[in-house]
Amino acid sequence: MDEIKIKPIGIIHTPFENDGEAPFQGREAPESIGRLEIFPEFAEGLDGIEKFEYLTVVFYFHLRGKAKLKVIPRKGNELRGVFSTRAPSRPNHIGITVVRLISVDGNILTVSGVDMLDGTPLLDIKPTIECCK
Amino acid sequence: MDEIKIKPIGIIHTPFENDGEAPFQGREAPESIGRLEIFPEFAEGLDGIEKFEYLTVVFYFHLRGKAKLKVIPRKGNELRGVFSTRAPSRPNHIGITVVRLISVDGNILTVSGVDMLDGTPLLDIKPTIECCK
Repeated sequence: MDEIKIKPIGIIHTPFENDGEAPFQGREAPESIGRLEIFPEFAEGLDGIEKFEYLTVVFYFHLRGKAKLKVIPRKGNELRGVFSTRAPSRPNHIGITVVRLISVDGNILTVSGVDMLDGTPLLDIKPTIECCK
Repeated sequence: MDEIKIKPIGIIHTPFENDGEAPFQGREAPESIGRLEIFPEFAEGLDGIEKFEYLTVVFYFHLRGKAKLKVIPRKGNELRGVFSTRAPSRPNHIGITVVRLISVDGNILTVSGVDMLDGTPLLDIKPTIECCK
């Protein structure tokens, strides 16, 4: 399998417009509130989601350019392999954050614990039963 | 952003060749051993990974056809929105499993807790500090 094509299922709205503003990880900013806007054609897939307190949000680090295999982590000063970090400039640019579900209003989920930049493409949402905040 | 192209960084080897054999979730089969084979061109990105006990593995449900928005979960009997389940037949077919790292040998990671089918394309590996097994 050479190349896989994926498509956003929605957009993530957060208070963070620039790179330096976003918290290092969602669990460091449990109070940061965001909204997951699911595109109407995927909204049917949200049925039953209100039963879960925590959700795993899969997203795309859309502002990152070329992937690097060695990075200096935000909390570090030495080059490390990118797979031993959660740096955005990774192959495939896939990010994962566990958030807390506050409310569901049609195709909009209000959540806390966001650490993504505003406008981040949403790729998937999964229920998280045993939480790892 | 309309379409995103991603590429496997490796292949996941597990004991599970057919759908019915794989455990429902990795945490239900902590003893199931697998190997994450990272393609040589990405192996440099593994530097430092041996320091972590748990890894979040991102993969592609490659055997699934058309995505569905309503599914009957494996442990249920009623249709539910796919985002309130971890069913493979989801938009973008992205799967996530937390595994335990047993050993690192070059570009091969031996791990326990796998629940993917043998031959599953590997998309990303992230360290998992506060575990959610």
